[in-house]
Amino acid sequence: MTVYLVGAGPGDPELITVKAARLIAQADVIVHDRLADDSIIQLAAPGVDLIDVGKKPGNPTPQETINALLVHLGAQGLCVVRLKGGDPFVLGRGGEEAEALIKAGVSFEIVPGISSAFSVPAIAGIPVTHRRIARAVTVVTGHCEDPNESVDWSAHAKTGATLVVLMGTANLPKISADLLNAGMNPFTPVAIIHNGTRADQTISRLTLAEAHLAEAQAPSIIVIGETAGLDLRDPNTVHELIASGS
Amino acid sequence: MTVYLVGAGPGDPELITVKAARLIAQADVIVHDRLADDSIIQLAAPGVDLIDVGKKPGNPTPQETINALLVHLGAQGLCVVRLKGGDPFVLGRGGEEAEALIKAGVSFEIVPGISSAFSVPAIAGIPVTHRRIARAVTVVTGHCEDPNESVDWSAHAKTGATLVVLMGTANLPKISADLLNAGMNPFTPVAIIHNGTRADQTISRLTLAEAHLAEAQAPSIIVIGETAGLDLRDPNTVHELIASGS
Repeated sequence: MTVYLVGAGPGDPELITVKAARLIAQADVIVHDRLADDSIIQLAAPGVDLIDVGKKPGNPTPQETINALLVHLGAQGLCVVRLKGGDPFVLGRGGEEAEALIKAGVSFEIVPGISSAFSVPAIAGIPVTHRRIARAVTVVTGHCEDPNESVDWSAHAKTGATLVVLMGTANLPKISADLLNAGMNPFTPVAIIHNGTRADQTISRLTLAEAHLAEAQAPSIIVIGETAGLDLRDPNTVHELIASGS
Repeated sequence: MTVYLVGAGPGDPELITVKAARLIAQADVIVHDRLADDSIIQLAAPGVDLIDVGKKPGNPTPQETINALLVHLGAQGLCVVRLKGGDPFVLGRGGEEAEALIKAGVSFEIVPGISSAFSVPAIAGIPVTHRRIARAVTVVTGHCEDPNESVDWSAHAKTGATLVVLMGTANLPKISADLLNAGMNPFTPVAIIHNGTRADQTISRLTLAEAHLAEAQAPSIIVIGETAGLDLRDPNTVHELIASGS
């Protein structure tokens, strides 16, 4: 049998893939993160073994423990679904789980999910790329456990790509300061989307200069760049866009 | 009724969302691109009106024509599914279609899809982010119709992000040259994934210096960066990774 490393998407239970839904229904055991929506778990067969390894603030399950659990369950010949928010390989540590499984000789398969990095802005009316505004988008972590892994924000400030920052709420003042110091326009639009795709979603819109002083509540996705000023759900911003010739 | 701008994912028919499958089955009319896999269309009800606006080489349907068609169909009160490969807002021109609809007062909804930019590398064994290797990933177009929209490759060369280039096969020599001239290491791994997620998928692995002289066949997705040297389906590359301390 196989360990399936499955992306659960951004939260809306209809934004999981057909393949993920099938595998959840077939699984013997599901090892899941803290998911935005419990109804995804309800696709599982009655009596399936559910193991919650969701990283709780202050009481995280170490990644090494999760890796060892997946190896242990996979080696028993069970059909294991490792259900992760968003996409397993987009800042989701799926690569580390894959590494542990392959090292142990346990077969596994990757099942991509809808990344929160693109879908949460989309549902908030923000296209992460848009003709004549942004021809590139960068997804980057705002959280660095290890000082050797720091992100070069001054290099990112110069590409013209829309920046989508995941896990960046705690560091937003520092990230904004680094981008401003690197010469990014202080009037660059910033959108902070809290509880994206959920019924209780909120969107704060501000400038980069204001973001430097802002507090953002986790979990949020932060979009920085001209596209963050758009709201394709709102005719007024679209008319401004058309008027500006883009 | 509503025009749904729906992402069809990377090609594998099981990698569409549950929501996309439901909307395709409910649609009165489906306006679709040239899709990697016809079986997605077979989810539609019998007798549904299928309009192929796929951009054929040498005979493209202009974007303005597609926009006008969507406005026309939506204004008739039909349930319209606009089915696009990958994700509508990730270099997919979905923003332009949304703009046209909102300008015309036609209601619409965005349904994100699995982006080819992340899922095609994942299924080829390449995690676009990986601990201690890449904490950011940039998705960028390699195709520019308009010289005013050119991408600053020298800025992208300096961020450390994995680069995923869509629509870049024709310009691969120029893109590679620009990255090399900006100081990117000539031994940087490059992976060219042709027909990604399909049964006839092929993967070419080379260095940036070699990519400068390479020919890539469309449709391909090009991954440039240290993660492009990984193949999480292959124990050997994983053992090298572990040996290098990452």
